[in-house]
Amino acid sequence: MFVILVYDVGEKRVNKVLKKARKYLNWVQNSVLEGEISDANYKKLKYELGKIMNLDEDSAIIYQLRTTKYSSREIIGIEKGGQELIL
Amino acid sequence: MFVILVYDVGEKRVNKVLKKARKYLNWVQNSVLEGEISDANYKKLKYELGKIMNLDEDSAIIYQLRTTKYSSREIIGIEKGGQELIL
Repeated sequence: MFVILVYDVGEKRVNKVLKKARKYLNWVQNSVLEGEISDANYKKLKYELGKIMNLDEDSAIIYQLRTTKYSSREIIGIEKGGQELIL
Repeated sequence: MFVILVYDVGEKRVNKVLKKARKYLNWVQNSVLEGEISDANYKKLKYELGKIMNLDEDSAIIYQLRTTKYSSREIIGIEKGGQELIL
């Protein structure tokens, strides 16, 4: 499946969440990653994010698209995902 | 169509972009909005965001789903968007 992950977490956890999510998905923008992922890796990703996040304060939304056939995307302004992310 | 808007803009423009986007979509998380939108309003939204944004620095991605039949979403942690959320 194709997923879009958007997260909003405390500053101390931002880098940890990003690093973990990049194991499975492609970074596209500040706090947004996307990509094809297997069911097994999807479960791993959720589990690993859940361990890093403070579940009383942080939030992550994962949109799952079973197919990308009925979806597309447009970018306004610059495309950030093509650049190397500097941490 | 159903759209998900994620934006990453300079601090000075964050509130303006949010205010404009909320005219058309529901806020779900920091820098993320979603919702059903007509083709006409979608064009308006893009045009209005383009006027506010600095197109050399800022970025916004709009994912368009022609149908939500093949999609779903999961939340890890807290749900920030409140009751407006429907997918």
